[in-house]
Parts: sequence; structure tokens; C-alpha cells
Amino acid sequence: MDTHKKLVLGIFGFGVVGEGLYKVLHQTPSLNATIKKVCIKHPNKKRDAPADLFTVNKEILLNDNEINIIVELIDDADAAYEIVKTAFANGKSVVSANKKMIAEHLPELLELSQEAEKSFLYEAACCASIPVIRNLEEYYDNDLLHSINAVVNGSTNYILTKMFEEKLSFKDALIQAQQLGFAESNPTLDVEGFDALNKWTFLLTHSYGILPKKEEIVFTGIQNITSEDALQADKKDCVTKLVASAKKLKNGKVAAFVLPQFVKKDDPLAFVKDEYNGVVIESSFADKQFFYGKGAGSFPTASAVLSDISALRYDYKYEYKKLYHQQQNELTNDFYVRTYVAFTDWGHVRKDDFESIEEWHSNDRSNYLIGIIHFEKLRESDWWKKNGVSLILIADPIIESLDVAKLKKRSLELAGVAGKYSLS
Amino acid sequence: MDTHKKLVLGIFGFGVVGEGLYKVLHQTPSLNATIKKVCIKHPNKKRDAPADLFTVNKEILLNDNEINIIVELIDDADAAYEIVKTAFANGKSVVSANKKMIAEHLPELLELSQEAEKSFLYEAACCASIPVIRNLEEYYDNDLLHSINAVVNGSTNYILTKMFEEKLSFKDALIQAQQLGFAESNPTLDVEGFDALNKWTFLLTHSYGILPKKEEIVFTGIQNITSEDALQADKKDCVTKLVASAKKLKNGKVAAFVLPQFVKKDDPLAFVKDEYNGVVIESSFADKQFFYGKGAGSFPTASAVLSDISALRYDYKYEYKKLYHQQQNELTNDFYVRTYVAFTDWGHVRKDDFESIEEWHSNDRSNYLIGIIHFEKLRESDWWKKNGVSLILIADPIIESLDVAKLKKRSLELAGVAGKYSLS
Repeated sequence: MDTHKKLVLGIFGFGVVGEGLYKVLHQTPSLNATIKKVCIKHPNKKRDAPADLFTVNKEILLNDNEINIIVELIDDADAAYEIVKTAFANGKSVVSANKKMIAEHLPELLELSQEAEKSFLYEAACCASIPVIRNLEEYYDNDLLHSINAVVNGSTNYILTKMFEEKLSFKDALIQAQQLGFAESNPTLDVEGFDALNKWTFLLTHSYGILPKKEEIVFTGIQNITSEDALQADKKDCVTKLVASAKKLKNGKVAAFVLPQFVKKDDPLAFVKDEYNGVVIESSFADKQFFYGKGAGSFPTASAVLSDISALRYDYKYEYKKLYHQQQNELTNDFYVRTYVAFTDWGHVRKDDFESIEEWHSNDRSNYLIGIIHFEKLRESDWWKKNGVSLILIADPIIESLDVAKLKKRSLELAGVAGKYSLS
Repeated sequence: MDTHKKLVLGIFGFGVVGEGLYKVLHQTPSLNATIKKVCIKHPNKKRDAPADLFTVNKEILLNDNEINIIVELIDDADAAYEIVKTAFANGKSVVSANKKMIAEHLPELLELSQEAEKSFLYEAACCASIPVIRNLEEYYDNDLLHSINAVVNGSTNYILTKMFEEKLSFKDALIQAQQLGFAESNPTLDVEGFDALNKWTFLLTHSYGILPKKEEIVFTGIQNITSEDALQADKKDCVTKLVASAKKLKNGKVAAFVLPQFVKKDDPLAFVKDEYNGVVIESSFADKQFFYGKGAGSFPTASAVLSDISALRYDYKYEYKKLYHQQQNELTNDFYVRTYVAFTDWGHVRKDDFESIEEWHSNDRSNYLIGIIHFEKLRESDWWKKNGVSLILIADPIIESLDVAKLKKRSLELAGVAGKYSLS
């Protein structure tokens, strides 16, 4: 019955995840996996492992016939891409945690891994310890997936939690996150949503069989969110999260974006605090399902890498059933969202972009409006990311079609009020 | 690339789940599965499907060579066992939702399915729509699983939620559950913990590679829990849940039981309300992970059955790696638990069973104590289930070893107090 394959690993990178994996492997002898060589960049750094394990020459790993798995755990997405390409060409399977590389090169990498008939697994690249890719691949393939909403970035979630629960300012929360190691010293990738966007790109592949380019997906981060927004969320019985969303519309097309959202306090995503991640999957028959776990950190990420390695004992491959075997889905921006927009200067808001404005508020502390906007308008412009404008979608933001007559009447009324108070 | 197998189904049972499956299959044509025949008990019941689909003769399904999958969805565990045995003998794979049958016959069924080289899948038998078995099989095989704690019975969880959140009495909550279809007209199996026990039996197989007999596992239900207990939970910043628990102790053995527990309000299980189920898995590297979803109902259960059927396109089998390939685990009762015990009459509590009593309380409304008891004492006796005695474990109940000297001192002090107030 024992069909275990002998696993000989060549690892690229010995940072927090690589070192975590090294330790984890030492505590799971049942896996019968050997690390033959680790390729590093800086040979003189002190490391808690035998010196002869390391090399700076990548060819030593890539050309070693005994090594059958390359585990790629480096930061540099371009260098990683070169390594992974060569690994497939040399007949090795690959385990990677490099979301940026995958987001930018998945179509090519799929082709190369298929030509080589080798596995390409990357559970650690999204939500670390939560087995979300494996579940989307194996478990939600035949079900009618209504929507998937997720908190996929631990740093921003940590910052938002501190802003909302401990009333810290954005700046203080960020400093705390950095001190605790939940945010990079250059936090732009996390804070401005690039990291979440990367993850969402290939999670859409496993959710809906779509292979989008990053440029196709509307996104932002939490850089403009203020404590005042937190107060408004609280008044609406919500918390603010940076949510990666995808929803199948009635016309069969898929709406997908990464934007801050007000999330109802009884929504499972509201339970996701600090550096945790969470995924809510809604399907026709299973109803709402929620997966929750640590989304970052050395051991949670190493644990996901380890599960991928373990699956290679049985030559496990993602099948991309939704991409290859099922009806293709496609992205659309032809829908509306209901959104909150806070601003310091009414002139920074392109108000003509809105189909209707349902509410506005202005006092000495804050200005905001709540309105309905066509999603293509967000895609075409960036006023809503600039000049401290803070756009946060209202809970259940998507509106598939509008009753135009009703909206016109309401907008005219509001225009009247706004005129009276010289807000327009 | 298309390795899809043609699936021809013979279904036993057309109750809520069977009918749900019938509908679900009609909405997932991509699966390419055909229902050839459905075996039912009462031919004259009105059903929302063509009459020629049905038969009362089980042999017609079991002897049909074209049918390659038997889907067993009947209530009667003994009849189900006979059906499943014959199905394997006749070379068919089996999908089942019958937790009682699996709890009572897993070792034999494993043997038969292996002899026949056929799959035996039963994701729907535990936590319905939550893919807990598949994740334990595929994802947590190499990780060091510290503990698994779960709410696996939707009916009791619904009742407890209503008692705690809406301050209903046990009786009123039960009636409401029955009216909504979350509890059987004879609710004993759910309420007294038998259903949760059944599920826990085989979840231990997939968690720790143990094949326990039901009799080995200490359990009770929620039959003796009162609104007063709910108040006490609230004071401790907890909610009460019927929790199925398993934990690997330092000595490598596994503690496992199904008992009411006070669960801290920030524990993911506290988030599991109404008829939902939830599973918290703690492992060395991945830390705490939480899976949440609908644990009962026609469509959530049918959705799990469907996922199993879908997996059979690729001849998926549980591998029972932990049972066959890894170091065997065994159950132990050699540990202590800290527990709350409420009672109407001090005489109903066998107080000598306790190692120590840390707290006791008595007034005109309620009597309770909090103490430490060796687990074997619970296994040997049943005073704690009888005469309205309500035993609820304190959060994080397991104590692996005691500082005896400290306990003796504390107990002597309490004995003094108790003597003074004639409680002993």
C-alpha cells in the first residue's frame, strides 16, 4: 500500500519561511523528505543549519538529478520565475510561495509544468496556512460557486483591527505592525493592496477558471482610511476590512475586485482580526462556508509549503478543472456598487461619476457621501484613490441593475439640498 | 487531459437528502452523472420525480452492472450496512451519509472496500457541507495535530444558541428546533449526544488514525443544561457548546470526548451559532484553523454527497495514511479535567470522585461546584449524567498532571468551609 515517493528537495531562500520549513521538516520524519541543498544569496549570514547545506550557485540545485522538487521561497519574483522555468525544463516539480511571480506568470508556468508533466503547487502563496486553493480545486469544482470573499492580507488586517478596536491612528497602527513583523519596512505592497491583488489574481483561476491579468482587476488598499471611517463603520454596525471579492452575476459573468468594504459585524469576515486571514465561500447548495487561519508568519507559511511537499509523494497536481474542463467564465465591469466615499475637499470627488448619491454628510470633522457608481467608472479613473479620498464599499455592495427613474428623482432632491448648502 | 469516468448512480433513499441530491445533480450537468435507479421503502408516497426512477427492490440496483456507484442515504444503519457490504462485494464504490453505520462498522467496511479496491467516501456524514474529512486526510497528514475541537451537531447547537441568546428554556428551544426541522421528532439521538458521538468516532480515524469503538468514548449531550448554566457561562465570558474534542497529550496518547464545554467568547467555536457546525484544528505549525458551515439540511448535505460523487470521477479514495502509514496513536483516559457541575441536590454529586474542588456556590436558585476530576472517574460512573446533574467542562479543560500537594491544601480548606455550611 505504500506508494510514497522519495522526496529530495532543493530549496531557494532561507528567510523566515525557508528556515521555518527547515525546522518543520526536522519534526516530521514520517514525510521522508531530505533537503539536499539550499541556495542563498548572502553566504556569510549566520544561519542555524550546517554550512555545507548552502550554496550560492543555483545551477547546483537545478542540475542535480537526484533533486526532484524545487522549493522556491525567495522574494525576487523575476529571479524566481527564471528558477522555476529551469526547474520544469529539467524535469522537477515546483512548490512556490511567490504570489507576485504566480500573479504575473501563471499562464506560462502552467504551460511549462504541463509540458514537463510535473506538479506546480503554491498553497502557501495565498492565505498561508488556510488550504484555500486545495479546497477550491478539490471540493468546490462542481458546485455552483456564487461568491468568494476573503481577507487575504494579514498586515492590512492587523492595521485595520488596531484602528477599529484600539482606536489607533493609521500611522500608529502601521508602526505597531512593523514592530511586530506583520508589515514590511517598505509597507507599500501590503498597504496599497498590491499583495492582495496578486493573490486574488490566481485565486480567481481556482475559483472560476479565469486567468486574469493584474491590470484587469480594480483594486486599492487601506492607505487613505481614517479613524473617522472607523467610526462611520461602527455606526452602521460594521467593521472595515480590505476584502478581495468575486461574485458570479446573473448574466453568468464574474465581478471581481480588491477594495475596502464595510463588513457587517455578524459576517464571518468580521471575525477575522489582527494578522489572520479568512475566506467565505458561498455556493448554491453548501450555503456559506468559512475558512480561517493564520495568513502570514514563518511557521504557518512553512506549514502550507510542507503540505504541498507532502502531496508530491502522491504526485498531486492541481487539475484546473474549471479552466480546462468546465464552462469558461469571464470578468465583467458592467455592474454597480454602493459605496461610501470620505473626502477632505468636495472638489476631489468626481461627483458626475455617480448614478445617484443617496446620502451626504459634512461637518467640521468629516465629509462623506454614500452613492451608487457604475464599476467601469472606477476602473477608468483614479480620483477615488488620490488626495486622501477614502472609498469603502457598503456591505453587499454589488447591484446588478438599477431602477433609473427612482434614482433620478432621489438625485435631483439631493442636488437641491447640496445647492442650498453650497456643497456642489 | 479528460480522465472523467462515467458515473452511473444507484441511490438508496429519497428523503430530504436524496431529493436534495436529485435536484442538485440536475443543476450540475458538467458532472456527467446519471441516476439510474432510486430504491425506496414506500412506493406510494408522492415524489417530485418520474415514477419509473423508483423501485422497492434493492437487488435491482445492487445487481445492475452499469451502476458503478451506490449512494446510500437511508436512516436505518443496519439495513444500510447490508446494502453497502453487497455493493462492495459487487464491485461498486459507495458514497454514504450514514454516521451511525460508519461509527459502528468502519473496520469491516474498510476491509471490504479494500478487498474490492473500491472507494468508500462519506464527507456528508460529519459536518455536512464542511469538507472536514477531506482536509484531515489530505492536508493535515504530516503536520503535528495538537487538537481538534468541533461543534458537530446542529440541533443541539441550535437549542443552546436559543437558550443563551434569547434566554429560552431548554424545552421551548427544543420545540422551536423541531418546528424548524433542525431536530427529529424523537430528539434523543441529537440531544443526548449519540449523534455527535457517532461522528466523532470516525473523525478520530481521520484526525489521529484511531479506530475507536463508540463505547470507549466518554460522552453526554445537553439534556441537563439549564438557563442558569447559561448565566454562569456568561459570567465567565463564555458560551456553552456541545464540543467534540480530541487532543494529543505530551505522552503521545490522545484524549477524546464529547461533552458540553464553556467556550471563551473569542474562541472560533463561539462564533458557531444556530444550526451551523464548526471545526477548530490546532497544529504545530499552522496554528489555529477554523472551518465553518452548515452542518445539516437537505442541500448542504446533498452538496457534500455531490462532492464525493465528483471525486469518484478520478477514483478518489481516502488513504487513511495515519492509520496505515504513520505512527499509531491510542486513546487514553489518564488525564484530568476541570469542570463545572450544577446540581439540585448535593447528594447527587459523588464528591469523592474529585481530586479537588476549587469553587462551590449555593443559593436559592442554583448549586454548582467547579472541580478537578480524573477522566477515568467520568468513564467509570454516570452520576454526572443522572438526576439533572449538569456537567460542563471549563474552557481548556484538560490538565495532564496535578500538583497534588497544592490540591490537598486547597481541598482541606474547602472541606472546612463546606463543613461550616453543612454542604458536605
